[in-house]
Amino acid sequence: GFASLDHHRSLRQGFPEVVLCEGKTQAQIVSIVRALLKRRGPLLATRAEPAVARAIRRLDRRARYHEDAKVVVVHDPKRVRRGHVLIVTAGTADVSVAEEARVTAEVMGSHVETLYDVGVAGLHRLLGRKDRLFTARVIVVAAGMDGVLPSVVGGLVDCPVIAVPTSRGYGASFGGLAALLTMLNSCAAGVGVMNIDNGFGAACLAHRINILGQRGKG
Amino acid sequence: GFASLDHHRSLRQGFPEVVLCEGKTQAQIVSIVRALLKRRGPLLATRAEPAVARAIRRLDRRARYHEDAKVVVVHDPKRVRRGHVLIVTAGTADVSVAEEARVTAEVMGSHVETLYDVGVAGLHRLLGRKDRLFTARVIVVAAGMDGVLPSVVGGLVDCPVIAVPTSRGYGASFGGLAALLTMLNSCAAGVGVMNIDNGFGAACLAHRINILGQRGKG
Amino acid sequence: GFASLDHHRSLRQGFPEVVLCEGKTQAQIVSIVRALLKRRGPLLATRAEPAVARAIRRLDRRARYHEDAKVVVVHDPKRVRRGHVLIVTAGTADVSVAEEARVTAEVMGSHVETLYDVGVAGLHRLLGRKDRLFTARVIVVAAGMDGVLPSVVGGLVDCPVIAVPTSRGYGASFGGLAALLTMLNSCAAGVGVMNIDNGFGAACLAHRINILGQRGKG
Amino acid sequence: GFASLDHHRSLRQGFPEVVLCEGKTQAQIVSIVRALLKRRGPLLATRAEPAVARAIRRLDRRARYHEDAKVVVVHDPKRVRRGHVLIVTAGTADVSVAEEARVTAEVMGSHVETLYDVGVAGLHRLLGRKDRLFTARVIVVAAGMDGVLPSVVGGLVDCPVIAVPTSRGYGASFGGLAALLTMLNSCAAGVGVMNIDNGFGAACLAHRINILGQRGKG
Amino acid sequence: GFASLDHHRSLRQGFPEVVLCEGKTQAQIVSIVRALLKRRGPLLATRAEPAVARAIRRLDRRARYHEDAKVVVVHDPKRVRRGHVLIVTAGTADVSVAEEARVTAEVMGSHVETLYDVGVAGLHRLLGRKDRLFTARVIVVAAGMDGVLPSVVGGLVDCPVIAVPTSRGYGASFGGLAALLTMLNSCAAGVGVMNIDNGFGAACLAHRINILGQRGKG
Amino acid sequence: GFASLDHHRSLRQGFPEVVLCEGKTQAQIVSIVRALLKRRGPLLATRAEPAVARAIRRLDRRARYHEDAKVVVVHDPKRVRRGHVLIVTAGTADVSVAEEARVTAEVMGSHVETLYDVGVAGLHRLLGRKDRLFTARVIVVAAGMDGVLPSVVGGLVDCPVIAVPTSRGYGASFGGLAALLTMLNSCAAGVGVMNIDNGFGAACLAHRINILGQRGKG
Amino acid sequence: GFASLDHHRSLRQGFPEVVLCEGKTQAQIVSIVRALLKRRGPLLATRAEPAVARAIRRLDRRARYHEDAKVVVVHDPKRVRRGHVLIVTAGTADVSVAEEARVTAEVMGSHVETLYDVGVAGLHRLLGRKDRLFTARVIVVAAGMDGVLPSVVGGLVDCPVIAVPTSRGYGASFGGLAALLTMLNSCAAGVGVMNIDNGFGAACLAHRINILGQRGKG
Amino acid sequence: GFASLDHHRSLRQGFPEVVLCEGKTQAQIVSIVRALLKRRGPLLATRAEPAVARAIRRLDRRARYHEDAKVVVVHDPKRVRRGHVLIVTAGTADVSVAEEARVTAEVMGSHVETLYDVGVAGLHRLLGRKDRLFTARVIVVAAGMDGVLPSVVGGLVDCPVIAVPTSRGYGASFGGLAALLTMLNSCAAGVGVMNIDNGFGAACLAHRINILGQRGKG
Ligand SMILES: Nc1ncnc2c1ncn2[C@@H]1O[C@H](COP(=O)(O)O)[C@@H](O)[C@H]1O
Ligand SMILES: Nc1ncnc2c1ncn2[C@@H]1O[C@H](COP(=O)(O)O)[C@@H](O)[C@H]1O
Ligand SMILES: Nc1ncnc2c1ncn2[C@@H]1O[C@H](COP(=O)(O)O)[C@@H](O)[C@H]1O
Ligand SMILES: Nc1ncnc2c1ncn2[C@@H]1O[C@H](COP(=O)(O)O)[C@@H](O)[C@H]1O
Ligand SMILES: [Mg+2]
Ligand SMILES: [Mg+2]
Ligand SMILES: [Mg+2]
Ligand SMILES: [Mg+2]
Ligand SMILES: [Mg+2]
Ligand SMILES: [Mg+2]
Ligand SMILES: [Mg+2]
Ligand SMILES: [Mg+2]
Repeated sequence: GFASLDHHRSLRQGFPEVVLCEGKTQAQIVSIVRALLKRRGPLLATRAEPAVARAIRRLDRRARYHEDAKVVVVHDPKRVRRGHVLIVTAGTADVSVAEEARVTAEVMGSHVETLYDVGVAGLHRLLGRKDRLFTARVIVVAAGMDGVLPSVVGGLVDCPVIAVPTSRGYGASFGGLAALLTMLNSCAAGVGVMNIDNGFGAACLAHRINILGQRGKG
Repeated sequence: GFASLDHHRSLRQGFPEVVLCEGKTQAQIVSIVRALLKRRGPLLATRAEPAVARAIRRLDRRARYHEDAKVVVVHDPKRVRRGHVLIVTAGTADVSVAEEARVTAEVMGSHVETLYDVGVAGLHRLLGRKDRLFTARVIVVAAGMDGVLPSVVGGLVDCPVIAVPTSRGYGASFGGLAALLTMLNSCAAGVGVMNIDNGFGAACLAHRINILGQRGKG
Repeated sequence: GFASLDHHRSLRQGFPEVVLCEGKTQAQIVSIVRALLKRRGPLLATRAEPAVARAIRRLDRRARYHEDAKVVVVHDPKRVRRGHVLIVTAGTADVSVAEEARVTAEVMGSHVETLYDVGVAGLHRLLGRKDRLFTARVIVVAAGMDGVLPSVVGGLVDCPVIAVPTSRGYGASFGGLAALLTMLNSCAAGVGVMNIDNGFGAACLAHRINILGQRGKG
Repeated sequence: GFASLDHHRSLRQGFPEVVLCEGKTQAQIVSIVRALLKRRGPLLATRAEPAVARAIRRLDRRARYHEDAKVVVVHDPKRVRRGHVLIVTAGTADVSVAEEARVTAEVMGSHVETLYDVGVAGLHRLLGRKDRLFTARVIVVAAGMDGVLPSVVGGLVDCPVIAVPTSRGYGASFGGLAALLTMLNSCAAGVGVMNIDNGFGAACLAHRINILGQRGKG
Repeated sequence: GFASLDHHRSLRQGFPEVVLCEGKTQAQIVSIVRALLKRRGPLLATRAEPAVARAIRRLDRRARYHEDAKVVVVHDPKRVRRGHVLIVTAGTADVSVAEEARVTAEVMGSHVETLYDVGVAGLHRLLGRKDRLFTARVIVVAAGMDGVLPSVVGGLVDCPVIAVPTSRGYGASFGGLAALLTMLNSCAAGVGVMNIDNGFGAACLAHRINILGQRGKG
Repeated sequence: GFASLDHHRSLRQGFPEVVLCEGKTQAQIVSIVRALLKRRGPLLATRAEPAVARAIRRLDRRARYHEDAKVVVVHDPKRVRRGHVLIVTAGTADVSVAEEARVTAEVMGSHVETLYDVGVAGLHRLLGRKDRLFTARVIVVAAGMDGVLPSVVGGLVDCPVIAVPTSRGYGASFGGLAALLTMLNSCAAGVGVMNIDNGFGAACLAHRINILGQRGKG
Repeated sequence: GFASLDHHRSLRQGFPEVVLCEGKTQAQIVSIVRALLKRRGPLLATRAEPAVARAIRRLDRRARYHEDAKVVVVHDPKRVRRGHVLIVTAGTADVSVAEEARVTAEVMGSHVETLYDVGVAGLHRLLGRKDRLFTARVIVVAAGMDGVLPSVVGGLVDCPVIAVPTSRGYGASFGGLAALLTMLNSCAAGVGVMNIDNGFGAACLAHRINILGQRGKG
Repeated sequence: GFASLDHHRSLRQGFPEVVLCEGKTQAQIVSIVRALLKRRGPLLATRAEPAVARAIRRLDRRARYHEDAKVVVVHDPKRVRRGHVLIVTAGTADVSVAEEARVTAEVMGSHVETLYDVGVAGLHRLLGRKDRLFTARVIVVAAGMDGVLPSVVGGLVDCPVIAVPTSRGYGASFGGLAALLTMLNSCAAGVGVMNIDNGFGAACLAHRINILGQRGKG
């Protein structure tokens, strides 16, 4: 078959295998999702086009599509969310990546707050809300173009910062490469970097950090 | 003057400004270190050549040089170390980067353990010591050449993983670029990536994660 | 004319010229295929869109289109297949590249088996089927994103391993470049690398290796 | 001969041809400088190693070597300097590039002030001296590593900002490429970018801007 | 919300926040524009597709769409324009970038003249109009392909030159990268470079330079 | 206006300005072509889509469209063609680039012959027609993918060789970059390289070489 | 410790762990080699500088240093060598990489022949010795600069071809990148590519192929 | 052996094999040169360090070393030189590349003239000597940094132009890459490009063009 599902992942890592829809045919996605739904855990499918979302809804009426995040979710909405993840963006154009992160972290069980469009072209927007930064346990910062916001946030706070370069920009932004390099070279120490547009991965890491000390291992 | 020290950093982020010696003249380094020592906090100077280390020792006899890590340290060795950071390398050639991370995290106050030279060319070396992976609160994985080890570790554990590409390798490793790209594209979710050879930054992030839930914010 | 067919290839290399459809007009493809079919050997046309496949079928009713592999084939299906080529993929999204390899190797005369979607995000999927790896004469491993699977397979087996980076992924995968570099820098020795998405070439090399020692030259 | 001096430049652009020593033999430099000194205008030689500086001093005792800037100068030190150029650096390691800019602008006739080592890792160092930014006619900002400082300065001021990426950094800084891309993609509008380490060029542009409106063309 | 408008920008930098439409949904743009129009200052929206322009016109009948520049403008057309910005292009294909610059600079209050399609393939077109170059206070030069025109202009004039690489070209132009590198390495001193296709940014910088010495700060 | 035609080019270089249609609007092209046709010389418009070709035909009924070459031509077909340019391709997919070169060189006045699809995958196709190579005055070789053919041709002949990389290929061909680098590094001396897909430029250079020694300057 | 030796490798893959000296300190190498020599199998240490070779000889007098290949070997020279590996180079400058491959393959047990300096600048050197190509079971081709030789060899033979790009060349060879890309895009099917200068890896793969069909698995 | 000399080259291409010393050991060079000298033709050895030059002089007292060009030559200085090749450079730093071209072309039999340091930073230096350009049969233009000179020359003349990018420059010149890209994208048609610093290759091509029409083939 075209798929070998990792049914052990939930035990090993606390959440079942997530479906990355991009690069798979709709038939493949439907077959994988059907197998996952049988296990009755939560379902997360990322990079889902509307047609894919509709196909998944036909399998399970509880499925909810977050269009801006391109994510399909089946989960128990009443589950208590823990800790405090803050997601920040530099611009409005980075919001879709941030939303992929927000939905992912919430489905995994984290409490999430957001602070969008506070890039350094108008620095007072960030400095005026420093309290928002200081109360978070872990901060995700998404930025395209020059990608400078994680360096600025990283210089202000003492909690872990996760930087997500986005592909927003043009010309010498080279599809997010400029922002990626900025973040990797951040002069603020303690900033971990994700792949371009990888809101999903940022949320996984943020969630793992967020629940630390609240589980056995603390 | 050539330097504007950030004497506020200790308050803001719990550790004074760290001196990156690379790119500064010895005269500049000595002047900066002298100013920092006056503040009586701990001192950390990274990327220090032996001659620089000797110059710092002339300023303060307590200074200790970790030659493999190229780090100079002045700190209270009796301070209790908390939590559990595990540092893993794929090969022997990655050890100097790992040691930069180890010394940094320890000086900042983390308890650190190491597991070196367990790359996938001989996978049983890692799989035979899975218990070492499962007991850590946060894991730093340094690897050069193909940089695959963080993906493998990331698929096994449920704690945060920090990947550090090293510049070890030749040809199409392009000074660590190959390993960097591997790590950014990790198919294991929840892996944060640092700059090439940035053991220091990995340790900062690992330490921040490690002490979470043990401070007020938990 | 726009083509100078290499009618000598079958003699020289045991299989007639293969038609790479990408980059040719349909008129050119039809004219080339017609000339090749006259020679009565097997026909292989790769990177064929459905419309091209239909046009070829109009020339010869025996032509079979493998849609997932985008390959058109005219050959004697009853021919005995020799040896043992194993084709492995890291994910579901790499399957189309793997299928290009499978169809090619089979048409050339190799016996092929497959093991799909066993990447290191769930390593037990591979380790639980090590026997599949140990019985092959030669293994083709296709992987996108981080491209780590060939390194892991290469560390386990003692037969030749051929790595095929795929363009699956996004952001810093740079269209397969990340996976390509990973494979070129593999810390497991004895891994040969093909162009990105080049399932066809991987199959040619695997087939040549597979039949070694079964022909005169052994 | 190996050189065709542009003796017309002083008339055309207000300053004689400047000698870029890097890439020329000492014999070539000496011959060019001798020809320029005959014209009795000011002399500026950049990227001059100490040995080259000594050779020039043997030609003209008035020559002064700025070692940190690697610049040799012959000019009338009593000339009045006009306007107000501010040169800012993110770190101590960027100071040599900034000094190349400072000496160049001063020799050309600009009044220059400096503000060094005020990068965003300790943002208060910049914000606490905003007045310094607001009184300048034009600002040059040099930064290596992540290169974020020009974006932050550019968001605060309303005068022209010239960004100079420096090659300071390691790993994915790629010799200043990361900082260069950051600056080209600056989300703050109105930032012009120079080549990596090109303090000389930044000063030329800053000087041209600085004297605008004070010459006929205003 | 998805946007945190910088209503302070007009005070700080003399012109309200400009809307970069690329990368935003039409709903986001409309909401942002509506908020900005309430403030009654001028409005500038760049990279606006025709549909976006129509949506803005529905909000405010005074909105004018410059189709070649892809810019929407609401402003007082009778406002006096000051100084003298000259915009030059190498070819006809660079005109749309130049027009983005022209409209931006005019809306901000600069007097603009243009000289289009005078690249070095026919150098007499430029040399025959040198007077046009000599009377400008600041010159913007847009060029694609080899991007050589700014170097040539920069060698002739003594005013500030702003170079804008365009993405016009094919093959090894790599989307404007070739022209960008040419301009960064310009052998003519005093040339500041903008991002590829960034006519807007070039105009901001040109305008700031143009009005210098005409405001208090002179 | 958007164009400053170089009406002097015919005098200076023996052929009027050629219109590169790519990157221009149809309205711009029509206006430029109309102005050029008034001068009554030959007309050459490259990279012309069919709709553009039709628009030009409406201006002048003599205009002929070479669809495979994407070139529109108005010229005197009875003009005698001189010398001997040979155009060679490695594959069928390179023929469109070769045809751009053929039409250009013929319109300029060169006698052209072609030898298509003789790449080294079937080397005998080239070696069997060495006489074709030895009788040419100048040879243009177009190749995509690995781009090796110019090196092989360059090693056999003693006339000038012009190499044109094409964008044919996939994956690590990076849009023709691989072939371009191959050609620049050719171990056969005396090979000049053109931009990727630049059949037009190759023809200009070949034509200039071809007519040498037949004009005054010989 | 800094090393975790893979003592199981000999069982798993038929040859003990090979020491890559580059990137390790001499103390580390000596300690690793001492541990390996205790196991009494053969020893292979690559990228060994003369001083390292001398240090190893002090541990075991049988150690032999191949200076051109930079390889240290301890093995039973009387062991019978099997099969037939042919190693070919394009130029003299590629010989050191080829020698690393030759020594490695011989120590592992393969019979090796060589054909050096037969690049396509003088193609008759290769064509005149085609018999050498036709009798090999597997061919390794090392080439720098344009890297075209593997494509030419690959078009002539029907056995597996392994291509090794070398870093020989300058300018746009970019340290072997040009040759690497050429080989990855080879129009001759069935060519597997190794990392730049990786003679060792090429030999591992060639040896694995060479002994196929001579072991149980045939 | 490590070399297979191409003794047929003189017959095939009119000049014996040229020795590229870079990348060869002195022992290899001496052995190759000795074999070539036996043939009694002219000798050309490029990229020769002074020590290599001395070793060659010990083999043949007629050998002359051009230190600036790093070329060793044995030839008949009284041979008549034909035609007219003009070699132009943008700056003084490009002269060594130009000299490699000059010596090569002269040894091959071309008459060469030079025009050095006439880059566009002082355009009148070139325009004032247009006659020098108009009388040449073929022009070689070497330029580093922005590499714009070939475009300017190419727009003025009607003879073939060969562009040689040099590695002179810093920062974003990336070792000559910027100049290379500029030249490949030249808006002046009919410019052929060589590898970075490849004065030798430029001379080979220029010589082949220069003697056209003066040999049989005209
Ligand atoms: N948006 C995403 N970005 C990166 N990785 C993802 C994303 N969504 C899911 N994944 C991971 O991608 C892997 C999917 O691989 P596969 O489905 O087997 O091709 C899963 O193991 C997920 O952990
Ligand atoms: N196919 C082509 N490739 C490259 N350059 C071309 C091509 N066709 C025309 N040109 C050149 O491109 C220039 C056109 O620039 P523009 O002023 O934008 O029309 C002309 O000077 C031509 O010499
Ligand atoms: N999918 C493929 N990828 C790479 N090469 C291919 C593929 N299919 C066919 N080829 C090779 O590409 C060459 C076709 O070149 P052409 O003359 O343009 O048809 C043939 O010699 C095939 O060996
Ligand atoms: N540090 C510098 N960086 C960039 N350009 C410079 C520098 N110093 C001088 N120049 C310019 O470089 C040119 C020198 O080119 P050349 O003819 O090779 O000496 C002069 O026109 C100067 O304007
Ligand atoms: Mg915003
Ligand atoms: Mg090891
Ligand atoms: Mg899967
Ligand atoms: Mg500092
Ligand atoms: Mg034009
Ligand atoms: Mg073909
Ligand atoms: Mg040779
Ligand atoms: Mg000069």
